[in-house]
Formats: sequence, C-alpha cells, structure tokens
Amino acid sequence: MNIGMIGLGKMGYNLALNLLDHQHYVLGFDTNEAQRTSITHANYEATSSIEHLVEQLPSPRIIWLMVPAGEVTENVVQKMTTLLETGDILIDGGNSNYKDTCKRKEMLDDKGIFFFDCGTSGGTDGARNGACTMIGGDAEAFKQIEPLFKDISTENGYLYTGKAGSGHFLKMVHNGMEYGMMQAIAEGFDILHKSEFDYDYEKVAKVFNHGSVIRSWLMELTQQAFSKDAQLDQIRGIMQSSGEGKWTVETALDYQVAAPVIALSLMMRYRSLEDDTFTGKVVAALRNEFGGHAVVKND
Amino acid sequence: MNIGMIGLGKMGYNLALNLLDHQHYVLGFDTNEAQRTSITHANYEATSSIEHLVEQLPSPRIIWLMVPAGEVTENVVQKMTTLLETGDILIDGGNSNYKDTCKRKEMLDDKGIFFFDCGTSGGTDGARNGACTMIGGDAEAFKQIEPLFKDISTENGYLYTGKAGSGHFLKMVHNGMEYGMMQAIAEGFDILHKSEFDYDYEKVAKVFNHGSVIRSWLMELTQQAFSKDAQLDQIRGIMQSSGEGKWTVETALDYQVAAPVIALSLMMRYRSLEDDTFTGKVVAALRNEFGGHAVVKND
Repeated sequence: MNIGMIGLGKMGYNLALNLLDHQHYVLGFDTNEAQRTSITHANYEATSSIEHLVEQLPSPRIIWLMVPAGEVTENVVQKMTTLLETGDILIDGGNSNYKDTCKRKEMLDDKGIFFFDCGTSGGTDGARNGACTMIGGDAEAFKQIEPLFKDISTENGYLYTGKAGSGHFLKMVHNGMEYGMMQAIAEGFDILHKSEFDYDYEKVAKVFNHGSVIRSWLMELTQQAFSKDAQLDQIRGIMQSSGEGKWTVETALDYQVAAPVIALSLMMRYRSLEDDTFTGKVVAALRNEFGGHAVVKND
Repeated sequence: MNIGMIGLGKMGYNLALNLLDHQHYVLGFDTNEAQRTSITHANYEATSSIEHLVEQLPSPRIIWLMVPAGEVTENVVQKMTTLLETGDILIDGGNSNYKDTCKRKEMLDDKGIFFFDCGTSGGTDGARNGACTMIGGDAEAFKQIEPLFKDISTENGYLYTGKAGSGHFLKMVHNGMEYGMMQAIAEGFDILHKSEFDYDYEKVAKVFNHGSVIRSWLMELTQQAFSKDAQLDQIRGIMQSSGEGKWTVETALDYQVAAPVIALSLMMRYRSLEDDTFTGKVVAALRNEFGGHAVVKND
C-alpha cells in the first residue's frame, strides 16, 4: 500500500522502516529536513510539503500521523480536514487524549474522511520490529487498513478495539498500568537498596526474569539498566511523565473508579520533580508550632 | 543426591517430582497420608515419622522444608535442631519471615547445622517444571547444594543472594512488587470495565502480551483468567494475602522507604475483605453532622 507518514521522529522513523520492510511505499513528511531525509530506500520518498504529500498519494489516501499529541496533532488534523477527500483514511498513531480523538472523529466524519485512533506500544524497538497496536474507528473501513497493522505489529500484536476513541483510551489505560507496575518494581528495589543485605541488582532482576511470578519486559529493562550502571549512580530519580498517566487518573475520577496505585504512581512522579516541597515546609512548620519540634532551616 | 522433603502440599509435591525428574532420591514426609503417598517413583519413598526420615538419610543430610510459614515451620525447625547433626543441611523453601529466618540461623549455627533460606517463585507450575529460587546462607556450604538448585530451577533461575535471610528477604520484596503490579493491572481493567467502550478483556490482555511495554507473566495469567470467565462473573473481588506484602510494608516502614504503591496494594486487599467499613460509616456520619448530607441507613 501507499502510506503518507507525517512525523519522522523516533517512532515515525522506525515505523516507516517497518512499513518499508513489508513492501509498502512510504511518502514521508517532517518539518525537520534531517529526519525527513534520514531514510534511503527504493520505496521511500520525502516531501517538505503536506499539501504535496496529499497530492502525490493515490485515492483513497492513507495518512499516518506520528506526531506529538496535543497542539501539533490538532494542527495537522485541522489541516487534513481541508486537504483530504471523502473516503480517505487518516490514522493518528500518537498518544492523543481519547476525548480529543472523539471530537476529531466527529469533525472528520462530516467530511466523509475515516479517522482511526491507533495506540502504539512497545517503544522504538517495537515500532521497528513489531509493535503492539490497538485501533479504534469505523469497523467496515478498518478492513481496508487491517493488512497494514498485521504487517507492522508483532504476531497477534494488533487489536481492533471498537468505536473511535477506544484505541487511544486503551493505550492510555495501558500506560496507567505501566506507571503502577514501574513504581511497584522501583519501590521494591528501593527497599532492597536500603536493606541490611548486599544484593547485585542486575542479578536480582535477572533471576526474577527466569521463572518468577513478576517476570516481564519491564523487569528485563530493569536488568538492562542495572547492567549499564550497577547502582544507577549516573542518573537522578526524576520521573517525567507525558500525559497518559494523568489522563488515566482523571478518567478514573470521572468514572469514580478507586485506582489508588495508578494515582499514587503519578503523584510520586510529581514529587520527584521537586527537590523540596511546600507540603514538607507546612508539615515541618506545624510540628514546630504545636510541639516545638525542630525544623531544618534553609541556608 | 538424597533429599528429605518435609511437606508435600502443592509446592512440596511438585518440587519432589521435579527433583525426581533430575535423578535425585526423595524421602517424603507429610502428616497427611494421602499427600505422603501421592508419588509413585522408583526413587521415592515416604515415611510417617520425621525421626525415621532423619535416620534413613545418609550424612551429611539434606532436608528441604516446604511447609507453611510461621508456627508449622518453627515447630519443624525446632525438632530438626534436636535431630540433625553437625554438617547436616536444612533448607527452608517456604515463605518465612526473614527475621524468623535470621533467628533460626543463629540457633542452628550453634549446633553446626547449615541453614539455608530459599525464596521460591513461579507457582506450582514453576515448582514442577523449573522454579525461580533465591537462596541465602553460608557461601561455602552452598556449593554442596548448588547442583540441586540448578536442577530444580529454570535456566538462570537460581541466585545465591548472600548471608542468611537474604533469600527470604528478596522473595518477600518480590511479592511486594507482585502486589503492586497486580493492583496496577487490575485497576486498569476496572477503568476499562467502567468506561463507555466495550472491550473484550481476554483480547485486550492478549494484545498487551504481544509487543506492549506491559507484557508479562501476570498479564498472561490475566488473559488466561478472562478466557475462562469473560467478565469474571463467577468470582468475588475478595483479595486474600498471606503475609509477604504486609512484611514488605513493615520493612519499608522500618527502613523509612516511601513505598506508597506497595502499601496501598496491601490496604486495598484489606478493604476488599469487608463488605462495609467503619471508615465509611464515620465519614457518612460526619457529612451528615456538618452538612445534613443524607446517609444510607442500614436495613
């Protein structure tokens, strides 16, 4: 098939190579010229113009967005609304908020453009060699693009999840679970680290990966990280996040689901962003006020 | 080698079969006659007397305990203290509290008996076909029994963890991580369940297991559970626990480790044991007192 790939960052680049491996033609666009021209392949061409990309593709067009969620995705989708025609297919492979996805679906429906939301997991390695994809959108139109997902996903690694938004929703919740699982693993290693015993964390993660109940890809990545830096001395424990965990917690609140572990995983990430906290100051001050307990003064 | 296996419940039974597969001789003891005689194998014999078990084994004896943690383990270890001799080896393969293990080690040291704590993961299937074992105790004496662990563990599935207690401590923390990972997975499915989308949970778990970041044995078990009961209608959400999670949290408190996810996983288990809570009554009563908010009356 012929695919217009918009966004050739870490994920889009690897996904394009994956598509090319499977005998598809890829017309790539990225605002960054180096990324746009980073692929050399008989079935690959690049363009610096989205209009040109749309013109060049045969109808019905298949366009894959792999751009940052939020404003960038919104701008590209808006542009697509004016450029694409009835019967064309637009796939958002990024981590968009499912509520935005549902709105975009309605907007594109009015123009007869099929919009699919595709949650993509497995990291850059998955994008390159076999991703895990979960796709929401029109069931009938999905049949046209199903071969693409079969090709780029690992075996049994794609799922049509139902109506528009269900793909991004599922990917969001997947990431929420991921937050909780990572935090649980990390807290365990923190307890080992502060214990009276002297563990080799790489060996611990390795043995956990061979026959234990908690064997997992995350534990394999833990093993890999400790193999590079036995005590993780080289990095600080600052845990960034990119939205999906927050949305999962917001969604849990909307649906009144008690999800304390996912919520606390997110809040521990926020806590890690600050060297000191105002919470800490308030509690220290109160202990001082009522009990005369010593406070640690700022330098 | 010749091994005295004390305790032929689900784990001990499967471990004994595993040992027999690897050409070891097993002399089994269990208070329950049916369990004791459940194995038929040229290299297996059973006895209804611990004294007889100890007498029959050649010196230095190797005795493997696979009995419930706590009182039962304590009683058997106490008995072993009087029956075993200098140079004999006693392995506690159960989920004993590492603090008890450290005390038992001291007691057995005085008699020249080598005591090893072996954390065992992987469930009954692991015990039968290749467990994950983490073993603490005397480094020199470990060499004598290392071949046993190599045999019964899956490839790369055993680790000598250091001084006495370190095996049970590591298994305890492993279980704490397991609590958090399970709760995170479960909360995610709860959010899916209450959502506006209509997911097939078995298919969701299956796609997660093929290429996603959260692929794991726990997710495979999730897939298996949903394959048997698509909505888990047949079971109630009562989450029992057997000690290791509580000990992990107690240990985190002792070491002042912030481990909110593991702690909350444990407390959500406790919450699940009650249909109603006194906490709920108190909060409902207070809302009524200060704001006249309606309470739900008991029938």
